[in-house]
Amino acid sequence: MAINIDDIYNGDLRAIARAISVVENSSSGATELIEKIYPNTGSAHRIGITGPPGAGKSTLVDKLTHLYTESGKSIGIVAIDPTSPFSGGALLGDRLRLQGFSLNKDVFFRSMASRGSSGGISRKTGEVVDILDSSGKDVVMIETVGVGQSELEVAGMADTTIVVLVPESGDGIQAMKAGLMEIADIFVLNKSDREGADLMIANISESLELRDDLNWTPKIVKTSAINNEGIVELKESIEEHAEWLSSEELIGSKRNIRLINRVKEIILEELNEQFWTDERRSLLEKFVSENGKKPDSPYKIIENLKKV
Amino acid sequence: MAINIDDIYNGDLRAIARAISVVENSSSGATELIEKIYPNTGSAHRIGITGPPGAGKSTLVDKLTHLYTESGKSIGIVAIDPTSPFSGGALLGDRLRLQGFSLNKDVFFRSMASRGSSGGISRKTGEVVDILDSSGKDVVMIETVGVGQSELEVAGMADTTIVVLVPESGDGIQAMKAGLMEIADIFVLNKSDREGADLMIANISESLELRDDLNWTPKIVKTSAINNEGIVELKESIEEHAEWLSSEELIGSKRNIRLINRVKEIILEELNEQFWTDERRSLLEKFVSENGKKPDSPYKIIENLKKV
Repeated sequence: MAINIDDIYNGDLRAIARAISVVENSSSGATELIEKIYPNTGSAHRIGITGPPGAGKSTLVDKLTHLYTESGKSIGIVAIDPTSPFSGGALLGDRLRLQGFSLNKDVFFRSMASRGSSGGISRKTGEVVDILDSSGKDVVMIETVGVGQSELEVAGMADTTIVVLVPESGDGIQAMKAGLMEIADIFVLNKSDREGADLMIANISESLELRDDLNWTPKIVKTSAINNEGIVELKESIEEHAEWLSSEELIGSKRNIRLINRVKEIILEELNEQFWTDERRSLLEKFVSENGKKPDSPYKIIENLKKV
Repeated sequence: MAINIDDIYNGDLRAIARAISVVENSSSGATELIEKIYPNTGSAHRIGITGPPGAGKSTLVDKLTHLYTESGKSIGIVAIDPTSPFSGGALLGDRLRLQGFSLNKDVFFRSMASRGSSGGISRKTGEVVDILDSSGKDVVMIETVGVGQSELEVAGMADTTIVVLVPESGDGIQAMKAGLMEIADIFVLNKSDREGADLMIANISESLELRDDLNWTPKIVKTSAINNEGIVELKESIEEHAEWLSSEELIGSKRNIRLINRVKEIILEELNEQFWTDERRSLLEKFVSENGKKPDSPYKIIENLKKV
């Protein structure tokens, strides 16, 4: 393997970047790489950040990053970016982001495409975070776009999960519907200078009252990321949550759940790859598009595929 | 099996409801049921509707339903509803919706939980739509909440996919990032009486210009669902798209792609169930939480699980 593990441990940006590419492209050696670095993980605080498109997550991540680096912390950022088929890659906007940090050894930014990626995005994200963790980053942020099921799952892989909303995000019920209430350790109401901010906060608080099963009451932090307002308060809330996690000895069980989910996802991928031989793939095409004839039901097709 | 297939074909609401429950709960007989009704599917026009929470999708679906029933069409509606753990089921709001139709044989409404459901929500949605299709509904609408990967997949299972945005949804780039631009056959800008509507439309149009690979230029329809404005235009756009699909003989290939995806999803579920025996499940728990010891890497754990 061309990648020197010690270079990763020393925070060498090129070694980290190469290691991430190996994982992202499922290149040979990816499994061995993760096995090697795994014992060196566990020191970074993992922060998941999610919310609807346009809520200002990127700006928030940028401002938080500035604040962390000012206090001497090193940062890794993974942005999960649904790839557009037009551009064939992650959007330029994100790539240009954080340019101010490009020569800063303490910040590593990487955007990953989620659409059209071969294989589980949440497995890969977990592995990229492992690489950044093992490289000695104090904080690793995982940013996802969207408020759907898979985005929540990815953001939920963190120690601390932040849900970013804006006054226009709809009332508390709507947010609850999207499953946001369950995963948030911290709510950020961004663009909080806009109309409707107080109503939105009241709605979030009200929905949270239903969550009496928890020892941790999710914080609500008002920010205006673009004006750099509320970022210090957000960082303090993150630290408070991190302290609570360790004082309650919850961090271990959070990690165990993550590990279980990762094992399950990898196995699912492997089983799928084993089943879909070239022969079965082409048979499926044939079964579905036999000229003019209406295809069989999915279950009948599966019965026939299994005979092979 | 207690369900009479002919009752489903005749549009009997109780038979349809029971058949859907069989599929939703993966009860015994679910596979046979789908195999039986499958040959009777293919006459309904399937409409997928998605967009961010709070965009007004439910109201839009209600108004469209009124319009369709007025013109003598029968309608099936499947709303995919992320279950909240607090309520333990689909949210009341949705259940109360469409009450006006409850005695109307021409409308069948069902909300399905997506969170915590055992097994693939998109497979189940496909099967519920099959049931409604086979029951003679002219139009079946599939409504999903959220703009994430899995929500897009479910909405994309339709013949015509509608993406609902509001002036506050963020600029065109943000919408594109969420993968919406790729799946939309029709954009609805709802709440279009609000500030920013024209800018939003300009942004959508601009993003669409990048999509020059298509023969179908996605329509953009302005609505104010709550005021019943723009609904007729929306219905016309849907019909135009349906006509285009059949004139270009594209409906067949759309269906084939759907069938392929369904086959793949069912197989994945089956493989997963076969692998995770009780023995392996408890071994995994043991590997992950061996007292005090830092667990092995996921790949090492998998190696050991496979030895069983």
